Amino acid sequence: MSRPSFDVIAIGNAIVDVMAPAADEAIERLGMARGGMTLIDTDRARLLYDAMGPAREISGGSAANTLAGLAALGAQCAFIGQVADDQLGEVFAHDIRAAGIAFATPARAGDPPTARCLIFVTPDGQRTMNTYLGASQFLPAAALDRAMIADAAVLYLEGYLWDPEEPRAAMRQAIATAREAGRKVAFTLSDSFVIARHGDDFRALIAAGAIDILFANEQELAALTGREDFHAGIAALKDRVPVLVVTRSEKGAVAVAGGRQVEVAAEPVAQVVDTTGAGDLFAAGFLFGHVRGRDPAECLKLGAICAAEVIAHYGARPEADLRALIAGRP
Amino acid sequence: MSRPSFDVIAIGNAIVDVMAPAADEAIERLGMARGGMTLIDTDRARLLYDAMGPAREISGGSAANTLAGLAALGAQCAFIGQVADDQLGEVFAHDIRAAGIAFATPARAGDPPTARCLIFVTPDGQRTMNTYLGASQFLPAAALDRAMIADAAVLYLEGYLWDPEEPRAAMRQAIATAREAGRKVAFTLSDSFVIARHGDDFRALIAAGAIDILFANEQELAALTGREDFHAGIAALKDRVPVLVVTRSEKGAVAVAGGRQVEVAAEPVAQVVDTTGAGDLFAAGFLFGHVRGRDPAECLKLGAICAAEVIAHYGARPEADLRALIAGRP
Repeated sequence: MSRPSFDVIAIGNAIVDVMAPAADEAIERLGMARGGMTLIDTDRARLLYDAMGPAREISGGSAANTLAGLAALGAQCAFIGQVADDQLGEVFAHDIRAAGIAFATPARAGDPPTARCLIFVTPDGQRTMNTYLGASQFLPAAALDRAMIADAAVLYLEGYLWDPEEPRAAMRQAIATAREAGRKVAFTLSDSFVIARHGDDFRALIAAGAIDILFANEQELAALTGREDFHAGIAALKDRVPVLVVTRSEKGAVAVAGGRQVEVAAEPVAQVVDTTGAGDLFAAGFLFGHVRGRDPAECLKLGAICAAEVIAHYGARPEADLRALIAGRP
Repeated sequence: MSRPSFDVIAIGNAIVDVMAPAADEAIERLGMARGGMTLIDTDRARLLYDAMGPAREISGGSAANTLAGLAALGAQCAFIGQVADDQLGEVFAHDIRAAGIAFATPARAGDPPTARCLIFVTPDGQRTMNTYLGASQFLPAAALDRAMIADAAVLYLEGYLWDPEEPRAAMRQAIATAREAGRKVAFTLSDSFVIARHGDDFRALIAAGAIDILFANEQELAALTGREDFHAGIAALKDRVPVLVVTRSEKGAVAVAGGRQVEVAAEPVAQVVDTTGAGDLFAAGFLFGHVRGRDPAECLKLGAICAAEVIAHYGARPEADLRALIAGRP
């Protein structure tokens, strides 16, 4: 097994975030699942966009955000995801390449347009996401560059992309390719509603030993294990994946690797502006430590630092110099 | 003359800003006019976008930014400008309507696409703008709603839009309509390079008494009057327009009205993040005071408060509650 060219290759939704501040009452009035991610169709997208205040557009997508963090930390990364041949597709492709990430998935002609996520950010900084999947759901298995997947130390997959059929099939193929090449597979559960829809698939992947590093938050841990109690959830899952990482927002995060459990406190943040991307950037820091051979406690610390950076401003991709932030730490 | 329904109606470029931080050396390497606005064609737009880091998209356009400020202050506003029937056009239209501004100019089918401005923000907060005019340059005089122009207390025009031929003709018609209706005409000179191209037109408009309120910065004052010295520039222009407003960045601003000259200091700003929109928001504050019958010194103060808000964050439209910021002031 040769030394891989890439640290991390990810498959994920290719999404442009459309973000605006919103009043708490608007979340209820518009019938949104506060703090969660809901898939929406064209009509609902139009209705919600019309109800949204003046917005800004910033490239997003969970796994793509994680790669942006990894690249900012100095890792070599590649992304696979489907945009349409339109202006938002150009924006997404530009931003990910400008971050130094290899991105070669050809844009898809015709309808539907590039995916977008309408994000309503309430005064407490919490984000409520409404995703119009558009072209992103049509990522074909044929778009996978198998040689590139085999040439990355870690294949990183986002659970969000398990919803649509074509990308799900592509991700299954990618897992097989990575495992054949002796690479690691990392998976983020993304959202408890996604687990409600696909929990059986995720549990089967874990049982088959297909996942080496699993990322979850507290709600996702509960949804996957059926245990409301955090410690019971950890106990149910910790021996079933080589590395388990569970984030707990302001309560920090926990990792269990090789039977040993370590914790980290959340980094202090002067003001939480927008929590969009907190989990994505936590994964970035953790994976960066992992591919650089750091121990799990150090990986957690790097995750906490990166998550703290991204929630201090609007948008789910890092703005500060992450390399400088982690210099000399932990 | 009936009481108008709108405080301000503006005609301007309908532009989406594409903004990214940039190193000082990149400005030189890419041959950009630091701190200025340069019109670019498709090839140059592609080259500069490729050279740009990860960006964010926020609706812009000088006069549209001014209206966003006015609307945030509580004024009734309308906008006339040309977008294309594409995704960035939808973004622009959404954002201006979501700000509470009437906008009824139909989107233009086919090429060129909606205008965008590639803005490189250096570490000192200064912005260097590269504008691809796209659909914006095809605003036809037929798009003017003459009844609406006659129904606004002030018609506000941006000098930037004097470059392309069709909007220039439309703006000349709009001035005539406003004057026939007994309304005021406000004009911002926008940029010293624009004055280099169209200074004769601007001087003729002033000589004809077509402009009631003129906005300029120091460089524009010098370009229009041919006087390098600030005080000589003021002296040359002050008796030729009823209200002259000259902004001087960190040195504050000056207004001359009815022969009386007043000044204001710049508002303190903790950190200048991005100066994009500083002049636009100064104009918003000043015009708000003007349409509310405040005296020129108070108008200047309102301008300084609004400008200080917009330079403290990325993007050229206000994010804070401007009404709260000016409450009880000056």
